[in-house]
Formats: sequence, structure tokens, C-alpha cells
Amino acid sequence: GALGGLGLALGLWRRQAALAAAREDEEEKELRQRFMAPPVSGLRELRRRRRELRSRMELLIMETQAEVCRALTALDPGASFAVDSWERKEGGGGISCVLQDGEVFEKAGVNVSVVSGLLSEEAARQMRSRGKSLKAKDGKLPFCAMGVSSVIHPKNPHVPTMHFNYRYFEIEEADGTKQWWFGGGTDLTPTYLNEEDAIHFHKTLKEACDKHDPKLYPKYKKWCDDYFYIKHRGERRGIGGIFFDDLDSPSKEEVFQFVKSCAKAVVPCYIPIVKKHCHDSFTPEEKLWQQLRRGRYVEFNLVYDRGTKFGLLTPGSRIESILMSLPLTARWEYMHTPLESSKEAEILEVLRNPKDWVH
Amino acid sequence: GALGGLGLALGLWRRQAALAAAREDEEEKELRQRFMAPPVSGLRELRRRRRELRSRMELLIMETQAEVCRALTALDPGASFAVDSWERKEGGGGISCVLQDGEVFEKAGVNVSVVSGLLSEEAARQMRSRGKSLKAKDGKLPFCAMGVSSVIHPKNPHVPTMHFNYRYFEIEEADGTKQWWFGGGTDLTPTYLNEEDAIHFHKTLKEACDKHDPKLYPKYKKWCDDYFYIKHRGERRGIGGIFFDDLDSPSKEEVFQFVKSCAKAVVPCYIPIVKKHCHDSFTPEEKLWQQLRRGRYVEFNLVYDRGTKFGLLTPGSRIESILMSLPLTARWEYMHTPLESSKEAEILEVLRNPKDWVH
Repeated sequence: GALGGLGLALGLWRRQAALAAAREDEEEKELRQRFMAPPVSGLRELRRRRRELRSRMELLIMETQAEVCRALTALDPGASFAVDSWERKEGGGGISCVLQDGEVFEKAGVNVSVVSGLLSEEAARQMRSRGKSLKAKDGKLPFCAMGVSSVIHPKNPHVPTMHFNYRYFEIEEADGTKQWWFGGGTDLTPTYLNEEDAIHFHKTLKEACDKHDPKLYPKYKKWCDDYFYIKHRGERRGIGGIFFDDLDSPSKEEVFQFVKSCAKAVVPCYIPIVKKHCHDSFTPEEKLWQQLRRGRYVEFNLVYDRGTKFGLLTPGSRIESILMSLPLTARWEYMHTPLESSKEAEILEVLRNPKDWVH
Repeated sequence: GALGGLGLALGLWRRQAALAAAREDEEEKELRQRFMAPPVSGLRELRRRRRELRSRMELLIMETQAEVCRALTALDPGASFAVDSWERKEGGGGISCVLQDGEVFEKAGVNVSVVSGLLSEEAARQMRSRGKSLKAKDGKLPFCAMGVSSVIHPKNPHVPTMHFNYRYFEIEEADGTKQWWFGGGTDLTPTYLNEEDAIHFHKTLKEACDKHDPKLYPKYKKWCDDYFYIKHRGERRGIGGIFFDDLDSPSKEEVFQFVKSCAKAVVPCYIPIVKKHCHDSFTPEEKLWQQLRRGRYVEFNLVYDRGTKFGLLTPGSRIESILMSLPLTARWEYMHTPLESSKEAEILEVLRNPKDWVH
């Protein structure tokens, strides 16, 4: 009868509700395990369009963020990451994870952003380092940009600062053509030179590149040395690593696989160096030299870094996430010059004349 | 006889040599009393062309440098200025005076530079904020630029940072026409707001301006608030003062007299504030807030300041003198937000919405 039918419908509804709740629990659990926060595009939406490259890239940057944050927390158990999810009113948002004033890390930021909207032709041109021309409809170009970006400043002057960033862009032209490209890199900024560490760092990056093409590492190692040049000082910011931009060949899939290998290499290239040195003893003089080098880091980021400049000029960008790359503390002394043959002069020499660390 | 004549000539020569030596002693004494180091153009050359405006301006910037250095040293007797005279291989040079890590001052720099040579049309255009067009012969323009520039960062968070800069430019066009203009300003960057100090500072500047034209202070006060705007923060660098550029009317003489009044106002507008607060007690929290504000100072100078950017891009410029404006130490904390109604929030409010301090 009608009542029986109602009972059946009610039972069905209850089962479906229970299943939905279980699925939500499952998703919650998955989110907690895999990511630092729910992804900007939503897990369900990412599943729905799981074959699209931008979905796979968003999952990769979320995974990378979580992997790096976990690896850092494991080394600095007293500290924890503050996790901020933020929205951009023009479209998209991001997740900023920042650890400040820990035992091991002075400041560590790992930021994910996934933004979309409309770009002016001028802004679109500025996004590509080689400035390809783009045809806009009514002067506006729909775009999507996503990336993971991180700077780790440790306390101990014998543990180097590390930076990485992997990003993906899509711009749709007036005729519907989609331009896409990847960019990224990982690089090391030591206060003092440790050759063994430099070799380990570069070798790990080289291995990640070599799986795809043996020509990549030498090319991107040089690009890195060129990019992180502080022209007014005649010094590089650090001892390099890899850097690339505007990467749109041989194919979307192949470039994505390469970027994935690079992102997966972040933890193995850096974490062993932190482990090795985070309990090294150091003198006040060594701490002071670290602070002066931090000053140079600020100079590069504020004067030259394209990402920072682009971010500062973009309306609606989240300033705190962009400037999280700056160290907690920095120092500028007038006319500071290290003594000849000192450890300070040794690292300066390498910053002035970059070396090949792997052959 | 011949011997008598020789004796007379020898006596004359001796007297002349003694007079020359006395004159040199006199000049030495005058230099020591008046200036921190011999002027770039040489005292004799400046005397020879004493009626030319560039000579009078060079003497004014040298005098200002000495006046300010002496006033600062009087307040920080344990510290002393390191004086570096430097030459620019393309023409001209400068004198940098820097006091570092004193009792009262963390870093105080007072820099004079007098440079000349040939400018590219592009560089000449960049020198003028309103970019007037200039006609070059063979693409090059003979120019002369001179100025005094200073940043004083005190240790005590209750003593504000002060900056001033007064400069003069001459560019010769292809047809021999000389374009000339003055620029400059004096501004205050407190860590905490002290209304009495703000009023004293602005009032002293207003009085200096009013002697020449009552319209000047309001105009240059606003220009200062607009110029020192840190766009990505929505804050000004400090509580302002005066700022002007491209000043080439009503006449060279009148503008020079105005600039002279401004330069002479530096000591009376700032030194009483230092005296009043340099022994104020302060807490570690107040020192920390000062360090965060120093971070903003670095952001403005490296991202927006036209003088710094121009200097960093100019080949042959002296980087240490340009970047002496950076504080000894600075700090960046992620998402630092002062409590509502705190003293920190009070100064932020004024940096976001500039006030009129004198009517």
C-alpha cells in the first residue's frame, strides 16, 4: 500500500543519506590525509574533470604542499603550520601554510594558489617571459593560473634557505585557441658553502630532469644561475638549482610529467641537508653573516623577482602570501667586506662565479 | 749686481711659497671646519666659478652634509662618522658619511654626490618625473647631477626615522639650451605616533616654505603623501613632510633660495625630536614593532623609490651609497596585525589616512 511504499522510499532515502554521509566522511578523511586544506576547485569538481590537465596539476600542487609541510614538521616537531585558505574576489583562491619562529625553521611558507578570470592584454604579455602576442576578444583574455610556491628560511646558518615554485598557465585567445605553459624551479641559498650539500642538491635535481631528457638539467641549471642574478651586487642569490619558464613543448602530457618529477624531487633534494646540519653549532659571527645574506635575499625578491613584482602589481592578489618569501629578519651593513680566504669570501666567490656541481 | 738680483728673486720666491703654504693651511682649516671632506669639484674650482649656480649648490650640499653629521654626532658622542670619498670613473664622485651601531643611531647615512657625463635619451627621460622631451646630439646629452641625501635610523623606537634629499640637475640639449631643475624633500617615519612631534616637524617645514610662497607647503605636503605610498600595503611609508621634483620656476635663483631654506630646516625640524626621546624607555614589543616598520621601509625603498631604482640601474653608480638608506635590521612576520585601539593601530591609521598637521 501507500504506507508500505512510503516506508520503502523513506528507507531508501535513509540509506542514500547514510551513504552520502559515509562518502563525505571518506572525503574528509582523504582530505585530511592528503592535503593541508580542501582544494580551491573542490574535490568533487576535480574528480568530475579528472582527465583535464588543470585538475591533475591542481592535485599535484596540493600534494606537493602537503608533502613538504609534513617533511618540515617532522624535523621541527614543536612547531606547526598555520593554514589559511583565502578567496580571490575576482575568481579562485589559495591555501597558505606558514610556520614561523620554530626550533629549526625561522620562517617556512608553502603556498598554493589557483586563480582564474580575465586578463588585460598588457597583463597577459607580462605573464610570459618571452612575451608572445595574444589575440584578445574586447581586450580581455580568460585565464587560469595555478602554482605551488615555497621559501624555507632555517634558523641555523649552516642550513641553507631553499625555494621552489611550480606553476601552470592557460590563456584563451579570441578564436578559442588555448595557450598553455609551465614554469618552475628549485634553488638553494646557503649562508656558507658546503660542497657535499651543493652536489647532493644539484645531483638530485639532475636525476629528476635526466629521466625526461639529458639536455634539460644543463639548460635549466644555467637559466637558474642567470635568473637569480642580483645585478647591482654582481652576485647570484644562491648556488642555483634549476629554473625554467614558458615551457610548452614537446606536449602537455610530457611537460606535466617533467614538472611532476621536479616537484617530487623537492623533499629528497633538501630535507637530507636540513637533517644533516640542523644541530650544527654556530657562532654569533656566523649568525650575523646569515642576516647579511638574508638582506641580499630581500634585495633580489623585491627588486628583480618577476613573480613578486607581478604579484605586487596585480589587483586582488594576496600580499601576505606573496611576501611570505621574505625572511623573518635581515640586516644591511654599510661596506661589509669579508676577509680574504674566509668562509664568507668562499661563498661570495661561488655567488660571483657559479660552478658546475655535477657532470 | 746679478747676485743681488738673484737674492731678491729668491727672497720673493720664498715669500710667495710661504704665502701659498699659508693659503693652503687656511684652506685645509676651512675644509676641516666647514666640510666632512674636500668637495668633489675642488675648493679652488668652486671659488673660480663661484657665481655659477652649480657651484653654489655644491657648497650648499656640502654644508648641509657637515651640519647634519655634526648635529647627529653631538647627540651620539661615542659614535663617529666613517667618511668615504669616492670617484665615479664616468665623471664626478661623492662623499659618503655613515655612522653605524651608535648609542642613539642604529644607522645614519649622509651622502653627497656630484656626477657629470653623458646620458642616453632614455636615461635622461627617466630622470625627470614628468618626462619632458629632450633633444640630443648623437643620442647623448651632457648632464650634471648633484645632491645631498640622508636617512637616519635611530635605535630607540620612540625616535622616528628621518629622510631628506635635495638635488639639482642640468642637461644640455643639442642646440646648447640648458635644462635645469631641482628636486627634494624631508620626511619623517615614526614607529609610534607622537602628535606633538608630528606638528613640530611639519610646522618647521611649513615655515621654511612659507618664506617663499604660502602655496608651497600644502602642495609639497600632498606630493610627499602621494610619493611615499606603498601601494601593495595601502600605507604610506611615514607621516610625510614635503616632497617636490622637476622644480624649474619661477627662476633658478628663487628655486635655489627655496631649496636652501628647506636644507637649512633639516636640523631644526628633526634634532629636537631626537633629543626629546632618545632616552625614553621602551619594551621588547615596541622594538619588535619598530623592526616590522623597518621592513616596510625596505619595501618602499626597493620597490617604489625612484632614486633607488634609478641608482640601481645606472652603470657606475656606487651601490653602497645608494643602499645605505636601508636600515641595519628589519623584520617580516606573516599576517602581523596590531590589536584594535593599540598604539600600533594608531600609527597604521595615520599611515593609511594622512592627516594635516598644520593649518
